Amino acid sequence: MADAEIKERRIIVAVDEGEESIYALKWCLNNIIYSNFKDTLILLHAKPRPAVYGAMDGTGYLFSADLMANMERYSIELANRVIEKAKNVCKDLHQDVKVLTKIETGDPRDVICEMVEKSGADLLVMGSHGYGLIQRAFLGSVSNHCAQNVKCPVMIVKKPKSTAVDA
Amino acid sequence: MADAEIKERRIIVAVDEGEESIYALKWCLNNIIYSNFKDTLILLHAKPRPAVYGAMDGTGYLFSADLMANMERYSIELANRVIEKAKNVCKDLHQDVKVLTKIETGDPRDVICEMVEKSGADLLVMGSHGYGLIQRAFLGSVSNHCAQNVKCPVMIVKKPKSTAVDA
Repeated sequence: MADAEIKERRIIVAVDEGEESIYALKWCLNNIIYSNFKDTLILLHAKPRPAVYGAMDGTGYLFSADLMANMERYSIELANRVIEKAKNVCKDLHQDVKVLTKIETGDPRDVICEMVEKSGADLLVMGSHGYGLIQRAFLGSVSNHCAQNVKCPVMIVKKPKSTAVDA
Repeated sequence: MADAEIKERRIIVAVDEGEESIYALKWCLNNIIYSNFKDTLILLHAKPRPAVYGAMDGTGYLFSADLMANMERYSIELANRVIEKAKNVCKDLHQDVKVLTKIETGDPRDVICEMVEKSGADLLVMGSHGYGLIQRAFLGSVSNHCAQNVKCPVMIVKKPKSTAVDA
């Protein structure tokens, strides 16, 4: 590509609490983002939906309103921390890149696919194993689902087992 | 990333006779390859293994040696044409990039995963629907398999339905 030509790209990076998504973000910043592109990086975190209908534990007791409120508070705090960490990584590796952040509530598969569609993204970047082991057991692989269902190119990044968080 | 810093990356692009893999190659040349990187692009084509044991048609008649030899010749010719086309795309879009070509015989899933491992690739680029409809029905999705099994980042590129071969 001619280096003089300046492209505008919208790149979504799906981030969660796991190290792999931070590795994927670093990989993207080091390998895809350049000064000769006008890139907008959209850091997207999917926050679980509050369990409005499932407010009963396995023994048939209702969860208290307090507990439910605490869980929701924890989930919001976690989402903010994830986004804050991701923003700091961007600042450290690529000061010039324009960064937007989004926290959306719902199944990460739907959240990510909908955001790609809505934003007209040029690229989706994600780790291969997001959203925790337990959640994955129920959801199936988020990255597989997104790779099959979004229309833009998808970059799936794995964190090497033996390496520190470096890309 | 500091633009002065020069990285050496080995990028494998899996190419087949379909338009999608050429679209993926163009996408890679337009979005990943830059003059400030020392990239080596490895164009890899997986040629089907000659059917040494399956030389019998559905009616129980043996295929003639001639027919078998013709099929193999066709397969070699096709592989050469695919690689030639891919090389021309590279030349058109990015004259400076170093290009290596590889034609390997076997199941594309194995060929691609083995080449990633052997070459120590930094990135694998592929279309989402390679190797034809019939072959895919037997093989399952090549891109899914590779995304799950290789260790390096995988870029899966889909050709938009309404667009000409442009990335």
